[in-house]
Amino acid sequence: MHIPYNRIDGGVGAPLGFLTSAVGCGIKDPANDRLDLALIQSELPCASAGTFTTNRVKAAPVRVSHAHLRKGDLRAIIANSGNANACTGVQGILDATAMCEAVAKPLGLKRSEVGVCSTGVIGLPMPMMRIEPHYHRLLTGLKAGPGSGVARAIMTSDTRVKEVAIFLELGSHTVRIGGCVKGAGMISPSMATMLCFITTDANLSTDSLRKAVLECVEDSFNRITIDGDMSTNDTVLVLANGASGIPQIRRNGPRCRQFREALRWVMLELAKAVVRDGERVTRFVTVQVKGARTHLDSKRVAEAVCKSALVKSSWNGGDPNWGRIIHAVGYSHARIREELVDIFIGGKPACLGGLQAATPMDELRAVVAEPEFEIVINLNQGSADYTMYASDLSPEYIDFNRSEYAYWKQARKDGLV
Amino acid sequence: MHIPYNRIDGGVGAPLGFLTSAVGCGIKDPANDRLDLALIQSELPCASAGTFTTNRVKAAPVRVSHAHLRKGDLRAIIANSGNANACTGVQGILDATAMCEAVAKPLGLKRSEVGVCSTGVIGLPMPMMRIEPHYHRLLTGLKAGPGSGVARAIMTSDTRVKEVAIFLELGSHTVRIGGCVKGAGMISPSMATMLCFITTDANLSTDSLRKAVLECVEDSFNRITIDGDMSTNDTVLVLANGASGIPQIRRNGPRCRQFREALRWVMLELAKAVVRDGERVTRFVTVQVKGARTHLDSKRVAEAVCKSALVKSSWNGGDPNWGRIIHAVGYSHARIREELVDIFIGGKPACLGGLQAATPMDELRAVVAEPEFEIVINLNQGSADYTMYASDLSPEYIDFNRSEYAYWKQARKDGLV
Repeated sequence: MHIPYNRIDGGVGAPLGFLTSAVGCGIKDPANDRLDLALIQSELPCASAGTFTTNRVKAAPVRVSHAHLRKGDLRAIIANSGNANACTGVQGILDATAMCEAVAKPLGLKRSEVGVCSTGVIGLPMPMMRIEPHYHRLLTGLKAGPGSGVARAIMTSDTRVKEVAIFLELGSHTVRIGGCVKGAGMISPSMATMLCFITTDANLSTDSLRKAVLECVEDSFNRITIDGDMSTNDTVLVLANGASGIPQIRRNGPRCRQFREALRWVMLELAKAVVRDGERVTRFVTVQVKGARTHLDSKRVAEAVCKSALVKSSWNGGDPNWGRIIHAVGYSHARIREELVDIFIGGKPACLGGLQAATPMDELRAVVAEPEFEIVINLNQGSADYTMYASDLSPEYIDFNRSEYAYWKQARKDGLV
Repeated sequence: MHIPYNRIDGGVGAPLGFLTSAVGCGIKDPANDRLDLALIQSELPCASAGTFTTNRVKAAPVRVSHAHLRKGDLRAIIANSGNANACTGVQGILDATAMCEAVAKPLGLKRSEVGVCSTGVIGLPMPMMRIEPHYHRLLTGLKAGPGSGVARAIMTSDTRVKEVAIFLELGSHTVRIGGCVKGAGMISPSMATMLCFITTDANLSTDSLRKAVLECVEDSFNRITIDGDMSTNDTVLVLANGASGIPQIRRNGPRCRQFREALRWVMLELAKAVVRDGERVTRFVTVQVKGARTHLDSKRVAEAVCKSALVKSSWNGGDPNWGRIIHAVGYSHARIREELVDIFIGGKPACLGGLQAATPMDELRAVVAEPEFEIVINLNQGSADYTMYASDLSPEYIDFNRSEYAYWKQARKDGLV
């Protein structure tokens, strides 16, 4: 595969002027010290931007980070896994604020310069008594260099560390962009999904950065789906500290476009990594809808196909079932005409003009047997298109998500409920 | 459970003046003679009404039945299982029309007085060569009495015969309503789901009957969901032949209201039977949303909860996971306020004001361990309410739906593809 940018190691720690740290507090599991608390700090003031879940049930850290971003730019992010601090009321807000406060003072920052994120089980109080003893270790652990500890500390049901970093030349300067992401269930488009942190030593105004982030999130995290469930905690936070020494990138100039393209690429890489690491996923499917009358129509078709339980089941079974695809196209609320719909699986026609095409079934089966393949749906009615990235749905996904009782039992043991 | 009507045997054959017949043609499986072709005929002219899928991909029999209903009233219905005759283009229309023609002539009817329905695999041509030799047997088999053969002949992945019949007194006359239904996958609200036939010997004008059917479908079949996938073949057909001898029921009169209530009850019984017989279902959950600002808000909340893969997985696991329920409430696009939401599981508070309630977890677990339970979500913002009936989602559902390759192999053997 052609990679248009130069990859480097280090994730969120790769850009200049960022320090990271991660410790294990036993939030995920008191019985071991898996990393579950992370900190990112910029040595210089930053431009910052964020996007948050559009779920009306918003976790406390989402509310607090959003409020902090409205006050001004962030310079640090504290994040934990194991507990989402969602549906936790006033106490949840106090706990999220306390997490910011605890690191702001020693770092010489205002509390509102710290963003806070949590991911994990919903509806149980934050076990603050597990976190508090570890702030000191978290702060003294801050160091330059690889930031994989952060990527690791935000993992829950994720099976892989998901991070990426690149450098690119903007004029005579080199700038770096690094990012990490977590997310494997409750993944659905419509706003930044799951937790994602991105750092860069490029130099942009807050306005330019916000514009770029909104646009890139729309083209990456809003285009993936695993189970169609939108989380209460989805957050993307981006910090740009200018430590590369590059003069400020002018809004809408050519360097700004170059930077935006690179940011889009990084976000799309991370978004795809989320789908590939989806809970008990066996297929990564790119669904491209073409020839729609409007952008909205193309998006509706892509979302209906990518979210259909029956389509996802057939992918899981390696069945090139175009009948189920076209039935989802039909109920998508897009204006489609059955007799114009073409469906290609791995480049081979499966359905032409709404009817079975001549491609031998075994050829189509060979495509869908692969772990990654592409489906193109041409509505032949216009020129709008939309691409989404989806997974299959496996019996093991359901099995994995049958019960969160163990979390509740631990909370009861901790005296939290 | 209190049953407000007097049940009788016989399903669609119970009302006076209806004849039924069912034969096995080998459409489902050439290797055996399971019933897969059915016929219902009224001895008298009927008022008739129907509702059809709103999926833009419509099966040929849906198009043909719809066209026939627009021309005038139906007096007979022919139906098959094993092949949906969907995505079959012009040939599909010819085949569906031929099925009507084949029974219309011998019965002395116009072709447009026959409705046609198919259910089964999508995208494969109808094996007409299997059906044609059996028309004679189908026609000569027509007889009064129990109509369970029809209920049986439309089953696909259904595990149970689903039919109901009742009688009620309207003034000094007794009228009967009978119905049968099939459907176990591709079940989702938004229009009549799956195939349902209802017969009655009540005497109504076509206009009165259509109004009653639209209203009752909205309150029954449009309120159930198994997998969120809307089929291409969904059809409800209702025939009223007046054979009870009752004078015509005046539109909007008290007897009309009584009849409508009874029809609603029959449809709701059949709709619930569909959910209970959902593919690999282990739970039947009634989700009642109360206190919404508008009807649309209450419906959006109910649909989001009933369609969430994570909520359905937790029901499958017997986990009273209110966190997942409130997260679906949050992304439903209804105007809700987290801090006002109460959730009751089996009458016991699980979440009050958006926070965990004091009910011991084991009490809630005992409720969700049952095969049938009720969830009440009170948004505490208004007076609109909406009730839906949903199933869980099981690993076995995914497994069951992984592949339809066997159908394709049979079609290849038949020289159809």
